[in-house]
Amino acid sequence: MSFGFGRDFRATLFGESHGKAVGAVVEGCPAGLQLTEGDIQQELDKRRPGQVLTTGRRERDLVRLLSGAVNGRTDGGPITMLVANEDVDSSWYEKHRYIPRPGHADYTAFIKYRGFNDYRGGGFFSGRLTAGIVMGGAIAKKILSTQGIKILTHVVQIGGIKVGTQIKDEQVEEFAYSSPVRCADKGKSGLMVAELERLAAEHDSTGGVIECRVLNLPVGIGEPIFDSMESLISHGIFSIPAVKAIEFGSGFRLSGMRGSGANDEFCVKEGKILTKTNNSGGILGGLTNGMPLVFRVGIKPTSSIGRPQQSVDLRTMKEAELRVEGRHDPCIAVRAVPVVEGMTSICITDLMVRAQMIPRTIGD
Amino acid sequence: MSFGFGRDFRATLFGESHGKAVGAVVEGCPAGLQLTEGDIQQELDKRRPGQVLTTGRRERDLVRLLSGAVNGRTDGGPITMLVANEDVDSSWYEKHRYIPRPGHADYTAFIKYRGFNDYRGGGFFSGRLTAGIVMGGAIAKKILSTQGIKILTHVVQIGGIKVGTQIKDEQVEEFAYSSPVRCADKGKSGLMVAELERLAAEHDSTGGVIECRVLNLPVGIGEPIFDSMESLISHGIFSIPAVKAIEFGSGFRLSGMRGSGANDEFCVKEGKILTKTNNSGGILGGLTNGMPLVFRVGIKPTSSIGRPQQSVDLRTMKEAELRVEGRHDPCIAVRAVPVVEGMTSICITDLMVRAQMIPRTIGD
Amino acid sequence: MSFGFGRDFRATLFGESHGKAVGAVVEGCPAGLQLTEGDIQQELDKRRPGQVLTTGRRERDLVRLLSGAVNGRTDGGPITMLVANEDVDSSWYEKHRYIPRPGHADYTAFIKYRGFNDYRGGGFFSGRLTAGIVMGGAIAKKILSTQGIKILTHVVQIGGIKVGTQIKDEQVEEFAYSSPVRCADKGKSGLMVAELERLAAEHDSTGGVIECRVLNLPVGIGEPIFDSMESLISHGIFSIPAVKAIEFGSGFRLSGMRGSGANDEFCVKEGKILTKTNNSGGILGGLTNGMPLVFRVGIKPTSSIGRPQQSVDLRTMKEAELRVEGRHDPCIAVRAVPVVEGMTSICITDLMVRAQMIPRTIGD
Amino acid sequence: MSFGFGRDFRATLFGESHGKAVGAVVEGCPAGLQLTEGDIQQELDKRRPGQVLTTGRRERDLVRLLSGAVNGRTDGGPITMLVANEDVDSSWYEKHRYIPRPGHADYTAFIKYRGFNDYRGGGFFSGRLTAGIVMGGAIAKKILSTQGIKILTHVVQIGGIKVGTQIKDEQVEEFAYSSPVRCADKGKSGLMVAELERLAAEHDSTGGVIECRVLNLPVGIGEPIFDSMESLISHGIFSIPAVKAIEFGSGFRLSGMRGSGANDEFCVKEGKILTKTNNSGGILGGLTNGMPLVFRVGIKPTSSIGRPQQSVDLRTMKEAELRVEGRHDPCIAVRAVPVVEGMTSICITDLMVRAQMIPRTIGD
Repeated sequence: MSFGFGRDFRATLFGESHGKAVGAVVEGCPAGLQLTEGDIQQELDKRRPGQVLTTGRRERDLVRLLSGAVNGRTDGGPITMLVANEDVDSSWYEKHRYIPRPGHADYTAFIKYRGFNDYRGGGFFSGRLTAGIVMGGAIAKKILSTQGIKILTHVVQIGGIKVGTQIKDEQVEEFAYSSPVRCADKGKSGLMVAELERLAAEHDSTGGVIECRVLNLPVGIGEPIFDSMESLISHGIFSIPAVKAIEFGSGFRLSGMRGSGANDEFCVKEGKILTKTNNSGGILGGLTNGMPLVFRVGIKPTSSIGRPQQSVDLRTMKEAELRVEGRHDPCIAVRAVPVVEGMTSICITDLMVRAQMIPRTIGD
Repeated sequence: MSFGFGRDFRATLFGESHGKAVGAVVEGCPAGLQLTEGDIQQELDKRRPGQVLTTGRRERDLVRLLSGAVNGRTDGGPITMLVANEDVDSSWYEKHRYIPRPGHADYTAFIKYRGFNDYRGGGFFSGRLTAGIVMGGAIAKKILSTQGIKILTHVVQIGGIKVGTQIKDEQVEEFAYSSPVRCADKGKSGLMVAELERLAAEHDSTGGVIECRVLNLPVGIGEPIFDSMESLISHGIFSIPAVKAIEFGSGFRLSGMRGSGANDEFCVKEGKILTKTNNSGGILGGLTNGMPLVFRVGIKPTSSIGRPQQSVDLRTMKEAELRVEGRHDPCIAVRAVPVVEGMTSICITDLMVRAQMIPRTIGD
Repeated sequence: MSFGFGRDFRATLFGESHGKAVGAVVEGCPAGLQLTEGDIQQELDKRRPGQVLTTGRRERDLVRLLSGAVNGRTDGGPITMLVANEDVDSSWYEKHRYIPRPGHADYTAFIKYRGFNDYRGGGFFSGRLTAGIVMGGAIAKKILSTQGIKILTHVVQIGGIKVGTQIKDEQVEEFAYSSPVRCADKGKSGLMVAELERLAAEHDSTGGVIECRVLNLPVGIGEPIFDSMESLISHGIFSIPAVKAIEFGSGFRLSGMRGSGANDEFCVKEGKILTKTNNSGGILGGLTNGMPLVFRVGIKPTSSIGRPQQSVDLRTMKEAELRVEGRHDPCIAVRAVPVVEGMTSICITDLMVRAQMIPRTIGD
Repeated sequence: MSFGFGRDFRATLFGESHGKAVGAVVEGCPAGLQLTEGDIQQELDKRRPGQVLTTGRRERDLVRLLSGAVNGRTDGGPITMLVANEDVDSSWYEKHRYIPRPGHADYTAFIKYRGFNDYRGGGFFSGRLTAGIVMGGAIAKKILSTQGIKILTHVVQIGGIKVGTQIKDEQVEEFAYSSPVRCADKGKSGLMVAELERLAAEHDSTGGVIECRVLNLPVGIGEPIFDSMESLISHGIFSIPAVKAIEFGSGFRLSGMRGSGANDEFCVKEGKILTKTNNSGGILGGLTNGMPLVFRVGIKPTSSIGRPQQSVDLRTMKEAELRVEGRHDPCIAVRAVPVVEGMTSICITDLMVRAQMIPRTIGD
């Protein structure tokens, strides 16, 4: 079903933006993994609204772990995690129920569900559902860390401001989350903050690009043809609202290169087979090759803006002007960083389990 | 399993590059659809090797329809299609079995399968398996055509040569397959041919970009969150060898735009709700919005080149030089066009069936 | 994953017997269906513990509907339902953690999960998880009722007491749930109650047989070969703890019959094709044939009995005597009736959606 | 999709009774397993038609291995196996296309597919498709044998003749396939042969019961709740045409027993935990417990009989008499033995892979 993702490690999301709660059920976690609510909370806090320059909705997003763990360890059963919706005001949506917001799922969902979908705050199409991805990702990250695998994610572009040079892994690891815009380049981070303040003042928004790197993956992870590493990661990543593009390794740049320059030649270093370059982004034939897995995600500008936009009243089929109220994130790439990280963790864990690289029980 | 794709309409691929045959089993086709071997052959011919500037392997690729149709119509059961491998010479691969070709799956597959994988011509990692995608896609296209849906696909970039202006749908439909490089822009098509001839002479290769448009889709196709239209299409497209990037609508360009410019405002035309622009590529909230579905696929340069490259002998762990023999496509984007088209057709059909937009039986 | 069942209509269960809660997430319910907590509570009450001669655990089993409905109607998203565990005392299980109860999953789960499974009350192997089946089934029943489909379930055997004659549908519908042992034959119901009282006094238990009938099914429901009606129903039913046998129509009796007597001949009545007999239990070739779907489920005696039984201490590998404390159902077939009913409803709904007999939206 | 079964080890069937071929694609087989056409042929021969007292159709059923193996070993890809249909005469079916045979899928398939299904010999509803189960099972058996697991299957009842006493494992292994009716009890085997000759002379048929035992299974195989061992086996077994009942261990007899007699007490023998009795059929909580897994399958009488039966002409909706021509198996339980064995092997292999008890590569 479309609310769940993963085959051997699976997260099923539920909830609506203005309903009682959002959450996730995670199946396939090995038994014996140490897991507390704190482990999940720590990841959830990274996407919590109400931080610098993000949405005005004030949610504490406190997680409750309802099942799947006993005595501080997973028990092999489904792990259910719940976050209550606390700061909900649906009045604007009640008033504009039949006037779809441009750039949102309002119109397409209205047609698909003949109006029975939850129209308040986007219902289950809301970005709020990505809390479940972060919660599921928190568990996946814990599993991957038992294998030494690290996932580093940060913002490399906001609007016109791009990180020009390759940032070192250590720098990303250390600075990404201390930057208010999740950009590990301190200089660019400052410019991005200024840009977002300007946009907020103008009731406008912009997009961004997130880069993700996965380190220390074994060779051969991914399944041939339809469950290639790229296939699964892109499937998962495009499930995050506002994502419109993805590229692995040198991505679209490869289309203009020559084979003699694009092929990553093999070499041996300290007894290990590596490639001299990493244009492939760590993936050959859909399988990991032992180099860092690298991809970039293109995020569109926040659709909810305070400026008047043209829409249509679905009852009268007449055109109507709409101005989305409330304060919204001027760039959702910022809060999408832990979501991309969580989603990637889920994908990788799923493929690691499938490759029998994660045992059914962990711990002693 | 990873050799099959689709939930309600599913293609399972089988075969190896140098084995007896390649083929596909297609499940979920409505009963009653008119279907002959000719319908499938017509699509297969579009990717047949041995055409202008493509691989030297001479395959007639004649399809045999083994099951799933009776009296010229589908019977509701699995449709099995088979293409024999005829022009196979594995001697080069026997000789270089332990020296992986850069840019190929040789190394990663060797590790994953401890050397038991079929090393001849890439085994089931070979692009030859995409014949099954084209065969499955041929059926999907026939189903979609009963709903008036059209899929237009063509090459918009080869190496440094890019189609600058937006080509009209009619032009793509008419000229894509009459161009030897599948580019509907006649001027650029000529330049691309010249470029490929130059590369072939230099024993080098290049990449390209394919654009795909799906017309006449109903509103609301796609499933929320994890089976969004973008999720499924990207999942399928990244299963095609050499694909390294995908973007929907304005794609990566959106990351630099403002919300006020990126949002597609709604309007009413002849009683139908449309958007004034199509930056979203016809998808909102993962569901089709009635506008043309548009995406671009980035393809890396052909990995097999006649130039010497550095590799490693897996037995000795010593570095070794490798020169891939035989003539290879200087740009696989060209032959990937019908594959992208077939894969897209499979994705769309799957989501159309799921939305109950395709009946279980067709015909009268 | 093994905690979810169904393809187009899917229930995922979660929770543990002595954890915080048990519940279910249901995906694939059409949008627009009227649904309240009361609808679910009504079904849950049929399996609530603490009724006549059932387990001593006192649970109110009040359901909370956390997602999937807005304004009293389903919204097309996952429906999350939760029942808190209130009356939990794990002290006995703490004490006997390493001495598996005969007839329970204690031993097999201990080995599978290396002791990390929740050992209190059977963890997620507990019959308490079937509350989720009943909750999911409540939704399925509502969907099926929109198509006029009815599911009648009752007890036809407890220990040595069997319902001899065929009970009429109307009688089952009217009396099954008013009997304390869910037996629509009033005379036998009385004998069964007496038998259970006797067993309870002797600290022993017995098994039973449940019969299920599904009325008003359209012809052709079920999918060929592996998702036949019998395949899916048996798959679901064997997921209920203590079920050890199932037979459709005349079942095992058919093995001793002749073809000339077993074949159900076709006839026409009031313009409809029927069969004169119903040895097939309403299923031909795995598809419904328009006759009542009939099957019987064999349930083993309650494993938890107050008598001393021999077991093994898993730490010392020495044999050890065990006496399960607390009052337990002398025959779990009684409380399994609504579970069989719910499970069957889920199976039928799933196959009905797959046959496109249930629209994606319901209501006006 | 409903033509494939298994999650980690999966067989997809294709073909029609009177089409060009029947076959199977098997996914999930470990790479490196020694596999020849002879391995598969050996199993196929056990169900070949034209043996004593079985169907008059003369098929050699020679298997062709089309993909998935190289140099005598599996390569990790899909294994495609094909058997041509040679002795096909569809004239009777052409003549009686609109008069459904009682006890067959003719009527239900006609309604489901609005007449577009292949009506010749039952199309893909034919028992001939079970050749694919036997082929897939042949591979599964080879995998299981690497773990020391054995599957013993034989007929324990034909019509009124039942094997009364428990036959030893060694006897089943040695004699099942040397008996023309696959019954390891020599005395009963003779009586069964006589009974079938009598039935054949009377143009009638009968049913039977098959018993299956799986030896040497590790503890803990099976997945909690919905993929319990019983759930998966019954799902698979009910996919075999003519199966109408299944019971595990003491099965329906348990419904009349007391808990104190039905519970299998634990004991220790030679350092291993066993149960004193095996009423549970080797399964506790849906997981194997290390005892022999035992179940019995009830098969209905062959539906195709030479006697006149009443049916309905689907064009005129008038009742019509039908007499099925040709010689048919008087009891299909006989030829179903290798099918039950194959199906069981597939189920067990799937659950063994899922439990990570089968590595991704086999061999050295």
